[in-house]
Amino acid sequence: MNVIPKSVQDLIDELAKLPGVGPKTAQRLTFYLLRGSDENIRGLGEAVLNLKKAIKYCALCCNLTDEEICRVCQDKSRDPEIICVVSEPLDVVAFEKTGYKGSYHVLGGIISPVEGIGPDDLFIKELLLRIKNAKPKEVILAMNPDLEGETTALYIQKLIQPQLVKITRIARGLPVGGDLEYADEVTLTRSLEGRREY
Amino acid sequence: MNVIPKSVQDLIDELAKLPGVGPKTAQRLTFYLLRGSDENIRGLGEAVLNLKKAIKYCALCCNLTDEEICRVCQDKSRDPEIICVVSEPLDVVAFEKTGYKGSYHVLGGIISPVEGIGPDDLFIKELLLRIKNAKPKEVILAMNPDLEGETTALYIQKLIQPQLVKITRIARGLPVGGDLEYADEVTLTRSLEGRREY
Repeated sequence: MNVIPKSVQDLIDELAKLPGVGPKTAQRLTFYLLRGSDENIRGLGEAVLNLKKAIKYCALCCNLTDEEICRVCQDKSRDPEIICVVSEPLDVVAFEKTGYKGSYHVLGGIISPVEGIGPDDLFIKELLLRIKNAKPKEVILAMNPDLEGETTALYIQKLIQPQLVKITRIARGLPVGGDLEYADEVTLTRSLEGRREY
Repeated sequence: MNVIPKSVQDLIDELAKLPGVGPKTAQRLTFYLLRGSDENIRGLGEAVLNLKKAIKYCALCCNLTDEEICRVCQDKSRDPEIICVVSEPLDVVAFEKTGYKGSYHVLGGIISPVEGIGPDDLFIKELLLRIKNAKPKEVILAMNPDLEGETTALYIQKLIQPQLVKITRIARGLPVGGDLEYADEVTLTRSLEGRREY
């Protein structure tokens, strides 16, 4: 007999749709909320419903923002002449931890024929227009070092080459703290190719 | 620089409050929702907000329900003379998978001095009253076989003993599929004590 009330089962079902959340975890989270205060529930519920309300894409870099122009693009201390092209907003969060002082361009995804995502689904037109207008010193292609990332990087590199801008790709090699012994051969090959003189 | 818009950060913060959800997972889930449809977001948000709206405690067994009397207590095919006392609604879900045909009583927690939960915080008074009125054949104490569960079981056993009802405790022993070699000595001792003749 299903003894779980409908509103409880509804939340279990909704939570179980999230990636990495199975039915057991969804149950556990739901009953945690049930035991918690009404305030907790309201906080979470409203945060979910408000998530997209004020969100738009930055008119310059296409990152998610709640203003017309995002905080990075507004910041006068950042170098607008260096554009780091990433696929996702979370990649910007990652680069911000490094102390990088240039600007960004967020593609909003990666070219993936398997998932039916083509160049037109990404903010590539916006990037081209921006490069044409702003004539930056350097465009850093910072997609993930996997098949789709390399494909997207190559595609963009070919598109912007005619504009005579310096195009770079982030280094691929051994991660800091990594172990040579366990590195795959492609990574090792890249780390040899990318070796630098002292 | 914090580049995450406020509404996005709000949801990350709220999700990170859930047990087992760290800031990284909260970020991943939030951006998953951002990429998803508005319908998904509305579904989850409303499920959270509606969670407790129609929920009350069953007037008989104190389980969570959206009716006055829960589905198990309403079911005429169940034996009201056997009451299985559990600590949480999820324990009822677990027992329902076994084909158990008696009724339940949900305590709504476990006696835990460490967390400041005493007998008065649980539905123990309701259990006593129910036993006094309904005079069941048997009360099964089905709390977890841990320190707090045993304490709670012992406490309830002493309280209802004067009512001359048969009181049992679920068996403790080796789990099915378990391995003797890796069993702890307390479990093994219990499995010896609880041995049964063929």
